[in-house]
Amino acid sequence: MAYELYYWDGLQGRGEFVRLALEEARAPYVDVARGAKEEGLGMSAMMARLDSDGPYPPFAPPFLKDGDLIVPHVANILFYLGPKLKLAPHDEALRIVANGLQLTIADFVTEVHDTHHPIASGLYYEDQKEEAKARAKDFIAHRLPKFMGYFERVLTQNPDGPQHMVGKTLTYVDLSMFQIVEGLRYAFPKATKHLAEHYPHVIALHDAVAARANIAAYLVSERRLPFNETGIFRHYPELDRAAR
Amino acid sequence: MAYELYYWDGLQGRGEFVRLALEEARAPYVDVARGAKEEGLGMSAMMARLDSDGPYPPFAPPFLKDGDLIVPHVANILFYLGPKLKLAPHDEALRIVANGLQLTIADFVTEVHDTHHPIASGLYYEDQKEEAKARAKDFIAHRLPKFMGYFERVLTQNPDGPQHMVGKTLTYVDLSMFQIVEGLRYAFPKATKHLAEHYPHVIALHDAVAARANIAAYLVSERRLPFNETGIFRHYPELDRAAR
Repeated sequence: MAYELYYWDGLQGRGEFVRLALEEARAPYVDVARGAKEEGLGMSAMMARLDSDGPYPPFAPPFLKDGDLIVPHVANILFYLGPKLKLAPHDEALRIVANGLQLTIADFVTEVHDTHHPIASGLYYEDQKEEAKARAKDFIAHRLPKFMGYFERVLTQNPDGPQHMVGKTLTYVDLSMFQIVEGLRYAFPKATKHLAEHYPHVIALHDAVAARANIAAYLVSERRLPFNETGIFRHYPELDRAAR
Repeated sequence: MAYELYYWDGLQGRGEFVRLALEEARAPYVDVARGAKEEGLGMSAMMARLDSDGPYPPFAPPFLKDGDLIVPHVANILFYLGPKLKLAPHDEALRIVANGLQLTIADFVTEVHDTHHPIASGLYYEDQKEEAKARAKDFIAHRLPKFMGYFERVLTQNPDGPQHMVGKTLTYVDLSMFQIVEGLRYAFPKATKHLAEHYPHVIALHDAVAARANIAAYLVSERRLPFNETGIFRHYPELDRAAR
């Protein structure tokens, strides 16, 4: 049976980290909120799950439905799917390591989001633009290099070589790193101009993922939504600035 | 061999969610950064792990060391420790559910932190006080009721009854909910005055956890640090206000 992915229509957002894993594995899945109402899909199908009075409703999208089980949160979905899609390490201890890395990526994604929404996720960007400029300035000066430097270090210190974030095979963590680089470059073209110079292994990993047959096919398909200013990674020129 | 917990000395912070699980299970553990330098413990022992050039260094505290394995991130630590401490559901699917709930708690904790640090975690509170007032106002009006209402709903809709967040036995998620209520009450005494009225099952769970023998003994021990203005939950009167 196909996996059901529930995420807002019209943006890559956090759902994209899950889509990349499903696409790399060519796993059958339905992107529920993007489907047609006549087929029992669409936004109302997603809202019904969120508003369900059944056991363990999810707090927010994305969540995955596999049979009766509903799995919320990107890191949790990927931890659950990883072994099934052969995108997790074989070793149990390394699966815990992979989960830790994915949670650091999740924290970074939240910080990226908060560059344009530092005061309230329920308010418009325009209503917190000045605060966003202050937060984005700090993000580019301190947080982006801290996280990217860490990811570079993880690759450099991987005992199995710098081709992968964990172990010696492709995992969902590698796919998420691809998306981090894609998103940062879209949102902050000036700040990310010298990424390859400072974080060569991260960029090499990004390029290797982009070149994979299933990912390359996905990226040019209509299933891949373009980046835009409703997602996590938003390009607001006033928040971008050149960095070292 | 005792578990090694690595977290900043002097504050409960995110480390407290792990301590509560270790304490409830009476598991042997060393709170490394709080130990004596002469015993190879203390802050320098923690920094050595963070700065390690070995495989898979953690991004930040808290992290747990169990033998050779280093496990970072609260939710990951609790997912790993849960079965060993008998604080996770037996059922594999419910363990994924528990992990999802813990990740929602983690997101809530980040939002609590950002009420006093909306612009930059590296700046002093005093340097972002006006923005903190705006964020805290939104937090009290919208985010706190959204998250607490969700947790109340999870308890109400638990098919095994509203005594626990997941399944019919005590899990680490219940212990974390205790800490959420404790922290909110410390940070926002005005905003949380009517919690019991709006979220009765959450408060009943908090009280049940507080009454457990091992937790009660821990709370009056010197191992339990007091809340203060260096942790996640900080009491700044100017950020607090009465809520419905």
